[in-house]
Amino acid sequence: MQFETLMINGTVITVNADFDIIENGAVGVSGGRIDYVGPVSGVSVGDAARVLDAEGGLIMPGLVNTHTHLPMSLFRGLADDLDLDKWLNNHIFAAEKNHLSPETAKSGALLSCAEMLLSGTTTCCDGYFFEDAVAEAVEQAGLRAVLGQGIIDFPAPGVPDPKKNIEHAGDFIKKWKNRSTLITPSVFCHSPYTCSDTTLIRAKEIAKREGVLFQVHLAETRNEHDLIGLSKDITPVAYMDGLGVLDEKTLAVHAIWVNAADIEILANRQVGISHNPESNMKLASGIAPVHEMLAAGLAVGLGTDGNASNNNLDMFSEMGTVAKLHKVVRHDPTVIDAKCVIRMATIEGARAIGLSEVTGSLETGKFADLIVIDTRKPHLFPLYHPQSHIVYSARGADVRHLMVAGNFLVEDSRLTKLDVNEIMDNVNAIAARIRR
Amino acid sequence: MQFETLMINGTVITVNADFDIIENGAVGVSGGRIDYVGPVSGVSVGDAARVLDAEGGLIMPGLVNTHTHLPMSLFRGLADDLDLDKWLNNHIFAAEKNHLSPETAKSGALLSCAEMLLSGTTTCCDGYFFEDAVAEAVEQAGLRAVLGQGIIDFPAPGVPDPKKNIEHAGDFIKKWKNRSTLITPSVFCHSPYTCSDTTLIRAKEIAKREGVLFQVHLAETRNEHDLIGLSKDITPVAYMDGLGVLDEKTLAVHAIWVNAADIEILANRQVGISHNPESNMKLASGIAPVHEMLAAGLAVGLGTDGNASNNNLDMFSEMGTVAKLHKVVRHDPTVIDAKCVIRMATIEGARAIGLSEVTGSLETGKFADLIVIDTRKPHLFPLYHPQSHIVYSARGADVRHLMVAGNFLVEDSRLTKLDVNEIMDNVNAIAARIRR
Repeated sequence: MQFETLMINGTVITVNADFDIIENGAVGVSGGRIDYVGPVSGVSVGDAARVLDAEGGLIMPGLVNTHTHLPMSLFRGLADDLDLDKWLNNHIFAAEKNHLSPETAKSGALLSCAEMLLSGTTTCCDGYFFEDAVAEAVEQAGLRAVLGQGIIDFPAPGVPDPKKNIEHAGDFIKKWKNRSTLITPSVFCHSPYTCSDTTLIRAKEIAKREGVLFQVHLAETRNEHDLIGLSKDITPVAYMDGLGVLDEKTLAVHAIWVNAADIEILANRQVGISHNPESNMKLASGIAPVHEMLAAGLAVGLGTDGNASNNNLDMFSEMGTVAKLHKVVRHDPTVIDAKCVIRMATIEGARAIGLSEVTGSLETGKFADLIVIDTRKPHLFPLYHPQSHIVYSARGADVRHLMVAGNFLVEDSRLTKLDVNEIMDNVNAIAARIRR
Repeated sequence: MQFETLMINGTVITVNADFDIIENGAVGVSGGRIDYVGPVSGVSVGDAARVLDAEGGLIMPGLVNTHTHLPMSLFRGLADDLDLDKWLNNHIFAAEKNHLSPETAKSGALLSCAEMLLSGTTTCCDGYFFEDAVAEAVEQAGLRAVLGQGIIDFPAPGVPDPKKNIEHAGDFIKKWKNRSTLITPSVFCHSPYTCSDTTLIRAKEIAKREGVLFQVHLAETRNEHDLIGLSKDITPVAYMDGLGVLDEKTLAVHAIWVNAADIEILANRQVGISHNPESNMKLASGIAPVHEMLAAGLAVGLGTDGNASNNNLDMFSEMGTVAKLHKVVRHDPTVIDAKCVIRMATIEGARAIGLSEVTGSLETGKFADLIVIDTRKPHLFPLYHPQSHIVYSARGADVRHLMVAGNFLVEDSRLTKLDVNEIMDNVNAIAARIRR
């Protein structure tokens, strides 16, 4: 047999450099990797151990969510429509302090994994505390992920002594490095306003030494400049550049309050960007200059942010939002078109988090991380242009099948490996305690 | 039997004046109307011909979509990411001219009805050409609707002679008046830049004479003022007020480019507003000052606009968007909170289109237009506040049951009356011709 799995009778959205779309297409998988992408006529179903009929659906790369805090699903909808400081101080920090443990963090992360898989995400980039528990959940779920143990200059859940933060983060990397092809450890340094210059520099040193991604929230709110205590003529991005922490292995999350000079710095340093439009809108943080960042050649991926601030991990929703938001803000309906959005949600996200060699597009040699969208639904009829439906009409619930590295994790809209009822019941029990 | 149908074991979101939420609630239906809303403990299942167990889901009023062009689903995704004039002139007008007939309009409208029902909409307010065909589709689907035959000073699909537009619109009202409790005819006068002052006045006269709603696109684009040819000191809203066409039976659709004086005029005249955030974003039309309009006491409902410009009729998506959009635009995460959004999508929408006496909330005496949301899904766990999940986490696909005037039109996420495969196949055949 040439293929472990052969998918046939779908329209294949390759998201390769030419954005080739193949009608009556097929994708062959061997050894967990893509071995064939082309017309159905180029393969024989007799060459496959298993044949999956996409029944006219869309076969596309699995979505890459470049920013999550997976355990925070425990706090989904706990408090909304509040000022950021009230939301954080009166609700989120209290809930984290009183209810987070490795066990509850894992339960929350498993819930997030279930939600992500059912809505088409095959890769996420996460940063949180108790990241060991997150890694266990992700490993159990079978997702691909870049994970970072949080570093912050305050007592954090599970790390009461901030002095030990960097050590913990280093231990996490050592533990998870080379353990699996699916999990890539990284450093998650919270932000320039919650970490001192020394902490930022030391955290980046570890990331450099280990050759891993350095994730950091950057330029999220308008007052970040004042919170850091910067002089008038320096921006948060320029400050971070001065510390030497910006390079091609840095992921700047949010990057909202950046000016033209900042974008030039970010482009020169080849920093990856995680754009989180729905979280930024809901928390009224601001609107990142995505059009300008893309024009500067930056790798801009999409992210949902944590479920406490979004309140969902549906990348289809995020795609629809990013396409529409920047059009109205720029008074130009031609910007951030459907193909651009799909790139952001797949290959550009993979590039931003350092995984574009292994995932983010359907090309031979890459891991078989892909989804099949069921288009036989009224809201996806008629179908003139697949890219339009993916961005403007489809929802996470339209994902019928999902595969990571050749393994089916969702079949016929059901999870194959995770027990969704057990996960939901565990989370309910934790939520009952939080409610009290 | 006291009840035809009794729904039990749900959390009831009444959307009454106090926004009462009833845990372990029940809704009883008799003669198509709501006969009981309260705790399960207040009713006996023996009193009902049929008992429906909501299984812990959310029971809420069906959603009210205040602006649609139902047949335009035929053109969903035909052309996106274009300047408005290119989109209209090169694609939409051509497709309408060459492919619209009463038969194709009905097919498109049926597709829209299927999509609306499956995503929780029980009432829509539509305006288009071939509105007779739309009415037939809506009647077949069993939806509640306000429908208006289009009036425009140009040759329109099915009405080559603009002089006959007003006569056609009058005939439509006569035909559909008092024919059904579900269909309420109205006048749909396209806009002040496509209709002369004489046409606007005459169309409003018919609406007044028949006592029906006068729908009109108003202040949608920045250049509408110039298109109408107004002098510098007059706005489109002031112009319309000068014509005497603004009153409590007028629905102003979009109302984006309105200033403080315009809002005062709209409030004094008690004009209803249809806010279409996703369409306005996608077409880069602008962002309506919803917060200010609500503060002025205006009835602001939500609408999706037609599927050619949105490209979906999912009111859950629209709810999530409206909540987040105005927060980021106003730099304030506390505005347009979840309860406000739910009101806009139900009772305020009903008020804007003149149906708040019969639908839009779960209160005894109103028609039983309601939906049950299945919350036993990972993305709706845990559940702290139902209003939060409805706005920020749920999707149209989470609607499990839907009822209009006591009739189940969706059960277990399937249409009970419409043949969805036949509808999709018919639309596919039309789309094949459009593609050529």
